[in-house]
Amino acid sequence: MVALQELCVSGGTNDSSESTHKVEQTTPPPSLDEVEAIIGYEFKSKRLLEEAFTHASLGESFSNERLEYVGDSVLNLLFTKQQYFEYPDLSPGVLTRLRAANVDSDKLARVAVKHDLHRFLRHKKPLLEEQIRQFSEEIRRYPLHSNGLVEVPKALADLVESIIGAVFIDCNSSIEIVWKVFKDLLEPVIRLETLKIHPVTQLYEMCQKRNLKVQFVDLWKENTTFDVLVDDQFVGRGSCRDKKEIAINRAARNALDNFFKLSHEKDV
Amino acid sequence: MVALQELCVSGGTNDSSESTHKVEQTTPPPSLDEVEAIIGYEFKSKRLLEEAFTHASLGESFSNERLEYVGDSVLNLLFTKQQYFEYPDLSPGVLTRLRAANVDSDKLARVAVKHDLHRFLRHKKPLLEEQIRQFSEEIRRYPLHSNGLVEVPKALADLVESIIGAVFIDCNSSIEIVWKVFKDLLEPVIRLETLKIHPVTQLYEMCQKRNLKVQFVDLWKENTTFDVLVDDQFVGRGSCRDKKEIAINRAARNALDNFFKLSHEKDV
Repeated sequence: MVALQELCVSGGTNDSSESTHKVEQTTPPPSLDEVEAIIGYEFKSKRLLEEAFTHASLGESFSNERLEYVGDSVLNLLFTKQQYFEYPDLSPGVLTRLRAANVDSDKLARVAVKHDLHRFLRHKKPLLEEQIRQFSEEIRRYPLHSNGLVEVPKALADLVESIIGAVFIDCNSSIEIVWKVFKDLLEPVIRLETLKIHPVTQLYEMCQKRNLKVQFVDLWKENTTFDVLVDDQFVGRGSCRDKKEIAINRAARNALDNFFKLSHEKDV
Repeated sequence: MVALQELCVSGGTNDSSESTHKVEQTTPPPSLDEVEAIIGYEFKSKRLLEEAFTHASLGESFSNERLEYVGDSVLNLLFTKQQYFEYPDLSPGVLTRLRAANVDSDKLARVAVKHDLHRFLRHKKPLLEEQIRQFSEEIRRYPLHSNGLVEVPKALADLVESIIGAVFIDCNSSIEIVWKVFKDLLEPVIRLETLKIHPVTQLYEMCQKRNLKVQFVDLWKENTTFDVLVDDQFVGRGSCRDKKEIAINRAARNALDNFFKLSHEKDV
């Protein structure tokens, strides 16, 4: 096992480059015992708990990737079951959207941050800490879900799935126990009345209804930036450093905010 | 509830067009009691059993779509769990491929046919019977999985997922009971040593290794047909009436079969 002093944990250094070299750990990472207190579950196999908090970037012989794979499946079934009973008349199409919103990376990364679970992740991703800080700040504007407007540190969502996978394996595959452990931790759950669509879908739907042409124009800037044209008229702009998809969503959000104002002015 | 005499079941009529009008049933459809004998499970709620065998084409107030949605999730978790323990060293990437092969429509539709479950499906899809007949014939050439070479009647795969969903709901969400009921019915399961990739992927991988250019050329025939060119030389052809994807896979299969022969002749 790797000595804890060699590991980088979120809350550790401020390195500005992604690298695989050893990162000095100034303070020892918190004990995983605390995790058991946070989630209210005591592991029979501490090895599973350790595995769940070991990121692949460490280069260990084990990592949380397999548990994440298991947890993803468990989580899917838990929401499937929950929503099947909660919405006896809902079509599979809407159920799929409802489940997707609750198991996607935006939603799960919030769970990690809300319950401070990210502090225990052992990794060698020096950029992660800053990404988590930005994410924690940005989600304040979108308390439930950003619908594609913020960059999500994938490692956080993966971590939550890994913990779910670890509990599932540890408790002899009882989905009842897993639900009991995670039900409250996963709140606030997105329900039918709080389910929203991504701005880009919303914009397309709105324009289709009005028979308007939508165009996204890449401005080819270093900080990826898109303009939105509706019937050849500029209505919005959005940027994102790394993710094209988020830049487009932000552009659509801005366009939606501006659209009614602009069309009103045109009518006057 | 719809009177059984009004329903079309596979094994019923020979209508050549897809329609929603009532189809005359010459023989009464077999009783769903037989299904319980086939799968070795007695439903507490016969309504769930009935729902699982009611296709949306009937236009009833209920259909098997929601149970199919549930069954899909259950099946995913069952294979996830099974393979997690069976292959303790396998990466999530390979586990994903292994699971996908066992839960895809080609594999599940075989389960329906093998255990005669399709005979009990209540539907109004006059083409389905002929599609099932063709499918049953074609899979003889590919005993385990066709890897994208045959057209699969989706309603059959959906039916198997619905039955799994129905048992899951009926037995108070016990994945242990569901696995006990379906473990043998799902055999032959695809294992690591019998896992194959689709011909089109295989062809691309092979040509990439040899630094050869692959092209698929649509011949724009009524019966969708593709030619495969490797380094601008014709090496294979494939057709499929309805599905472009299958035509391309068949073309790739044919190309793979011909490739070594052709390259040998060129070398001589």
